[in-house]
Amino acid sequence: MVYTAAVSGASGYAGGEVLRLLANHPQVEIGQVTAHSSAGERLGALQPHLHPLADRVITETTAENLAGHDVVFLALPHGASGEIAAALGEDTLVIDAAADHRLESAAAWEAFYGSEHQGTWPYGLPELPGQRERLAGSGRIAVPGCYPTTILLGLAPAFAGAGEGPLVQPQDVVIVAATGASGAGKSLKPHLLGSEVMGGMSPYGVGGVHRHTPEIEQGLSSVAGTEVQISFTPTLAPMPRGILATSTAKLAPGTTEAQLRQAYAAHYDAEPFVHLLPEGQWPATKQVVGSNHVTIQLAVDEHAGRAVVVSASDNLTKGTAGGAVQSMNLALGLEETTGLDLLGVSP
Amino acid sequence: MVYTAAVSGASGYAGGEVLRLLANHPQVEIGQVTAHSSAGERLGALQPHLHPLADRVITETTAENLAGHDVVFLALPHGASGEIAAALGEDTLVIDAAADHRLESAAAWEAFYGSEHQGTWPYGLPELPGQRERLAGSGRIAVPGCYPTTILLGLAPAFAGAGEGPLVQPQDVVIVAATGASGAGKSLKPHLLGSEVMGGMSPYGVGGVHRHTPEIEQGLSSVAGTEVQISFTPTLAPMPRGILATSTAKLAPGTTEAQLRQAYAAHYDAEPFVHLLPEGQWPATKQVVGSNHVTIQLAVDEHAGRAVVVSASDNLTKGTAGGAVQSMNLALGLEETTGLDLLGVSP
Amino acid sequence: MVYTAAVSGASGYAGGEVLRLLANHPQVEIGQVTAHSSAGERLGALQPHLHPLADRVITETTAENLAGHDVVFLALPHGASGEIAAALGEDTLVIDAAADHRLESAAAWEAFYGSEHQGTWPYGLPELPGQRERLAGSGRIAVPGCYPTTILLGLAPAFAGAGEGPLVQPQDVVIVAATGASGAGKSLKPHLLGSEVMGGMSPYGVGGVHRHTPEIEQGLSSVAGTEVQISFTPTLAPMPRGILATSTAKLAPGTTEAQLRQAYAAHYDAEPFVHLLPEGQWPATKQVVGSNHVTIQLAVDEHAGRAVVVSASDNLTKGTAGGAVQSMNLALGLEETTGLDLLGVSP
Amino acid sequence: MVYTAAVSGASGYAGGEVLRLLANHPQVEIGQVTAHSSAGERLGALQPHLHPLADRVITETTAENLAGHDVVFLALPHGASGEIAAALGEDTLVIDAAADHRLESAAAWEAFYGSEHQGTWPYGLPELPGQRERLAGSGRIAVPGCYPTTILLGLAPAFAGAGEGPLVQPQDVVIVAATGASGAGKSLKPHLLGSEVMGGMSPYGVGGVHRHTPEIEQGLSSVAGTEVQISFTPTLAPMPRGILATSTAKLAPGTTEAQLRQAYAAHYDAEPFVHLLPEGQWPATKQVVGSNHVTIQLAVDEHAGRAVVVSASDNLTKGTAGGAVQSMNLALGLEETTGLDLLGVSP
Repeated sequence: MVYTAAVSGASGYAGGEVLRLLANHPQVEIGQVTAHSSAGERLGALQPHLHPLADRVITETTAENLAGHDVVFLALPHGASGEIAAALGEDTLVIDAAADHRLESAAAWEAFYGSEHQGTWPYGLPELPGQRERLAGSGRIAVPGCYPTTILLGLAPAFAGAGEGPLVQPQDVVIVAATGASGAGKSLKPHLLGSEVMGGMSPYGVGGVHRHTPEIEQGLSSVAGTEVQISFTPTLAPMPRGILATSTAKLAPGTTEAQLRQAYAAHYDAEPFVHLLPEGQWPATKQVVGSNHVTIQLAVDEHAGRAVVVSASDNLTKGTAGGAVQSMNLALGLEETTGLDLLGVSP
Repeated sequence: MVYTAAVSGASGYAGGEVLRLLANHPQVEIGQVTAHSSAGERLGALQPHLHPLADRVITETTAENLAGHDVVFLALPHGASGEIAAALGEDTLVIDAAADHRLESAAAWEAFYGSEHQGTWPYGLPELPGQRERLAGSGRIAVPGCYPTTILLGLAPAFAGAGEGPLVQPQDVVIVAATGASGAGKSLKPHLLGSEVMGGMSPYGVGGVHRHTPEIEQGLSSVAGTEVQISFTPTLAPMPRGILATSTAKLAPGTTEAQLRQAYAAHYDAEPFVHLLPEGQWPATKQVVGSNHVTIQLAVDEHAGRAVVVSASDNLTKGTAGGAVQSMNLALGLEETTGLDLLGVSP
Repeated sequence: MVYTAAVSGASGYAGGEVLRLLANHPQVEIGQVTAHSSAGERLGALQPHLHPLADRVITETTAENLAGHDVVFLALPHGASGEIAAALGEDTLVIDAAADHRLESAAAWEAFYGSEHQGTWPYGLPELPGQRERLAGSGRIAVPGCYPTTILLGLAPAFAGAGEGPLVQPQDVVIVAATGASGAGKSLKPHLLGSEVMGGMSPYGVGGVHRHTPEIEQGLSSVAGTEVQISFTPTLAPMPRGILATSTAKLAPGTTEAQLRQAYAAHYDAEPFVHLLPEGQWPATKQVVGSNHVTIQLAVDEHAGRAVVVSASDNLTKGTAGGAVQSMNLALGLEETTGLDLLGVSP
Repeated sequence: MVYTAAVSGASGYAGGEVLRLLANHPQVEIGQVTAHSSAGERLGALQPHLHPLADRVITETTAENLAGHDVVFLALPHGASGEIAAALGEDTLVIDAAADHRLESAAAWEAFYGSEHQGTWPYGLPELPGQRERLAGSGRIAVPGCYPTTILLGLAPAFAGAGEGPLVQPQDVVIVAATGASGAGKSLKPHLLGSEVMGGMSPYGVGGVHRHTPEIEQGLSSVAGTEVQISFTPTLAPMPRGILATSTAKLAPGTTEAQLRQAYAAHYDAEPFVHLLPEGQWPATKQVVGSNHVTIQLAVDEHAGRAVVVSASDNLTKGTAGGAVQSMNLALGLEETTGLDLLGVSP
C-alpha cells in the first residue's frame, strides 16, 4: 500500500530533509509541498538537491492544501502547529516537527514559549521504554527536538538501569552539546552567516534555562521514574549538520563500568538505529551524517565519580526528519526501518 | 537475481563509498571486503559509518580472496590492478577504480605513470556518446577519474554539438577545478592534515601537465572527432567532498547561447543523473554531495568569446563509486539507476 | 607625528579590518567610527575581536561626524561615497574602499553600476608600475577590489615584461578565482548562511561580465600598453577569508619559463608584500590570511601554450584594508610598511 | 635592549606561533631556529606564512645550537625538555612549552607521562593569584597547556572568590571543551586528516583521566586553597585553532549571579588580555583567534544550582606561544604586553 504525504515548511531545512527521506520511501507518495513566503516557486530553486522533485511547485501552507493526504508533516515555527492540526481530520496522521505538542506540562510550555499549550501528543522516540507501543497506530506524533533525541538516547539506559534501578543519580546531570549550524534553521541572522560560523565555536542560550531543558528532563524523569535535573549548555560548531552530546551523571553507589556497559548493550541490542560502539571507539558526528543512526560510547570516570556518555546524531535526520519517518512507519503499521536504510555519508 | 560483489581497498575512501552504495543496492550481496595494511581489522573500526557492515572482518587483498564473486571492485593504488585483474576469470566482472585501464595510448600511460600499460577497458561514463552500448555486457570496466567525469560531462555537449559539428573550438580549452580533500585519498601527508586544509585553498600539480590531462583530452577528442587540447589546473578546497569544475572554450564562429543551451538540454534530457539547471541557477557541490547526480550550468561570455560551463559532482560518488555502480548495472543488464536513488545530503 | 583617522562602515567586514590594522598603526589615532543601522551601539557588540576599541560607540555616518580628521576611510556600499567625499575638504585624505572612484571610464561605471560616475582617483595598488609615485601625497585614493588586487599582482609582471614587451598575449586571458565568504560582505542572504557555505563550492556572477572585469582589464591594459581582454569566473569557497586566483594567458612567441620567472623575480624583488615563491612551492591562502602579503607562483604549460599564474591574498587585508593602509602611508609620506608588519595566522 | 631568542620545534605549530609572535616583538631578535627531521630545510618551506624568516635554515635541535641566546623556547615532544634544559646555563631564560615542568607532583607526572619527573618550574599563567610575581626575573618558565590556560582563566575568579572564600564548590566541577585541530599538533594520524576533521565533531581521551586533568586540578586547588576535583571531556572541532571551554561548578550556598559577576569583574579589571564580556554577549573563539586575548562570560543556572562559565582562547596564542611570550616579558622585566598587541583575525 502507498500512502500520500504532504510536507509543510518545505523550503526549510527540516522540511527539505523530510522530503529527501520520503523520496526514498517505497510506500509514500509525496503530495503537496507547502511553505509560506516561497509559495509559487519551484522546489528546485529552494532545495536543489532534491532532483526528482525539482519541478514541483510550492503551494501556500493552508489546511486546504494539506487536507486529503494520509500523512501531513508540519515543519512550522513553534506555536503555529496547533491551529492547522485542529483543522485536519482524525483520519489524517499529523506529525509535528515543532515543539508544540511535546511537553506534558502546560505550565512549562507557557513559561518557555509564551503561548497557550495545545496538548500533548505521543512522543516520537521509539527507543524510549514503552514508546514504540504508544506510537503504533497513533494519529498524532510530536517529533522530539534534535538535542533531546541525542541526549535521551545517550542517557536512557543509565537511568533505566538493568532491573535494579537507575545506575546514575538523578540530580546534577551535566550536559554540554555541540550542534551544526542547520540546527538553527535557515533564518537570516548575522551570527549564522558563513563568515561568522566557519572556523569558530560559540555557546548560545547559556544560563537561564534552554528551551530544550524541560523536554530533556521530562524524558529522563519518565525513564528514571523520579525527577531528573539537568544543566544543559548548547554550543554552535562550524559544521552544517550533526550533534555531539557529552552527558555526565554521578554514578549511583556501586555502579561499575561493566554494569553500565551491560545495561547499554542490553537496551540497544535489538535497536536498528542506535549503536553502542565497541570499547575504545568513540562517536563522531560524521559517522551518522545523512543517516538515521545514533552512535554512543560511555566511560566511567572513577576519579570524578561520574559516568560520561557521548552520543552523536544528525540533527536533521534522526534528530528531526528521520525520527519523524520512523515514527510514521510505526503509526502506519509499516516496518519501522522502511525508507531509512541510508547510511552516513563519510568522509 | 542477486550478484555477489567483492570490494578491495575497503579501508580507503573509494572502497568505503563503493560499500556504502552496494549496501543500498537491492541486487548485490557484499562478499569479501579486502585491504592490505588493515587486513584482520573490523570494518567498523575503519569505516564506522557503514553500520550494517561493522562486524565484517577485512581480509588481505589477494586474487584468492577476490575470486568466486560475480563482481570485483578494485580500489587499489594506480599500477596495482593489472596483475590482480589478470588472475580473475573472464566470467567475473572486474571494475577498476584506478587509472590503469583508462588510457588508450600506451605511450601516455607510460609517460604519466611510469609502468607498463595494462590495456584499455570500456570507459565507465555512460553519458558519453556510444558509451552506454560499450558497457552493456562488458566484463571489464575502467572507472573514470573524478575530475575527468565532472569535466567531460560539463563539456561533452558543447563538443558533440547538435548535428552540425562542435559548438566550441578544440584548441585552447581552459579548465580550473576545485576538489574536496577526499580526492587526495586517505594518505598521511602533512598538507592534507585538517589544520592545513581547513580555512584555505591551494593549487596542486600545476604547470607541467596533470595526470588527468590525457584522460580528459582523450574523452573530449573522442566526442569532438578531432584533437582537443586543454590547460587544466586543479585546486584543493576546504571541504571533504565535491568537485566544482569551471571549463571554458572558445566559441565556434556563430555559436549562440541559445544554440548551446539547446544542445545541452537535448544531450541530457533523458539522462537520469546529469542535469542542466534552469537559467539563472548555478551548480553547487552541496546539491550533489552523497549522490550520483551532476549539475551543470553554462553561459556565453560574449565579451571574451568563450563558453563558460560549470559542473558539480561528488568526487566519491558519481566521480568514483557511483559511476562504478552505474556502469556495473549496465554491464550486468540491470536497470541503470538501481541502488543509486540516493539524493544529495544538504545542507 | 600622529594622524587622526575616521572609519565609516565600521560595523562591516571591511571597516572592521581597517580598524584592526589602524589599532596596530603607530602613527594613527582612531577617531570616529561610524555606521548606519548600528549607530548608537558599542563597537564591541559588533566587532568583538577589537578589544581595545570595545567601548567605542558607533556614530551615524555623516559628513559632520567624519569631518575634522586627517584621514577618512569610506567603507560604504557602492555608489554612496561620492556625495560624502565631496563634503570633506581637500586637506582630508579620503580613502574609498568602494568601487566608486576606481574606473577611468565613465561609460563602464554607468554600465556596471547604473549611477553617475563620480570621477577617478589614484588607484591604491602601489606595486603597479608608476603607481607608487601617483599615490605619494595624494589626497584621494581609490582602494582596488580584492579580486583585481590579487589578479593584477599575479599578472602584471607577465604583461610588463622585461624591457622587450609583454611575455604573454593580451587577448584571451582566462581567470578563475575562489574567494572566502567575507568577500560577499555581511549581508543577510540565504546563500551566505553557514549551513549553505560550509562544505561546498559554487560559482557566482558567471557569464555576462562580472563587475570586476572592467577594473581588471583597465589595470592589465595599463601595464601592457595595449588592450587586454579577460574571461573571469569567481567562485565562493567554504572559508571566511582568502582569494586564490588562477590566471592563465597565452605565451607570447618564444617566451620561456626562465624568462617569465626572471621577469617576476625582478618585478617583485624589492616589494615588501609580494613574493614570488621558490620553484616547487605553491601559494595557499592560509600563508597570507590576516596579513598584507601576497604569494605568487607560475608555470609554463607548454602543452597548452599558456602561462599559469596562481596568486593568493587575504581579501580583507591586502585585498581591502591593508592595501588601503599601505596607500595611506604613501599618501601621508610615511614608511610604506608602517603598521603592516602582521604575519599570516597559520594554521 | 634587544634579547636574542632561539626557537626549537620550529617546524611545528607551537614553534611556528612562537616565531610569528617574536617576529613582531620589538625587543627580541630571532637567533637559531631548530628542529629535528626537517633540519637543513628553509623555514619558508615549512612555515610559509613567516615571510621575513623564509630564508632562515633550520638547524638540528641540540644544546650547542640553542646555547648562546638570552632566551630559548623549547617546543619539543613531552619528555624531551629536561635533558636539553639542563645543558643550558642559568643565565639563559628557558621557556618550556611542553608539559615536563608544569606539575608539582612527581607522582602525577610519572603516572601520566611514564618518565622521570624533571622538576617544577614557575607556571606561566600570570593572571593566577601571585603568579606574576613568581615569574618576574625567573630563569625557567613552564608554559601551561592550552586547555588548562583556558579553563583556569575561566574558573579562577569563582574559586578565588571575593575575600570570603570560593563562590563555587570544589567537588564535582564538570568541564567540556572543544579544541581546533592544531591542538593535536602536526602529527600524521588518520583521524587528523582534513577529510576526517572537516564537517564533524568527536571526543577524544574520554573517561579514564585526560593528561590535562592533574594540571587543571593543581591550578584550581591552588587558587581555591582546597582540593578541587574535575570531570574533563575534550572534543575535537572542525576548525584549525581555538578552544571553547564550558566549565560548570556547583554554587556555594548563597552565591548570587551578581556576586559572581562582581568577583570576575574585579579579578580581571586590570588584566590586559582577559575580558569578562558585557552581560548578554558570549565568547566565541573567532573573537580571539590569532591574539593573546581570552574572553569569558558566566551565568548562574539556578535551576541546576550551578555556575556556568564559558571561556574562549586561541590554543596556539594565549594557550601556548602568546602565554610564553607574555611570561618571557615578565621574566626579562619588559612591559608584559610587549609584542602582543595583535588583535583577533575575524571573521
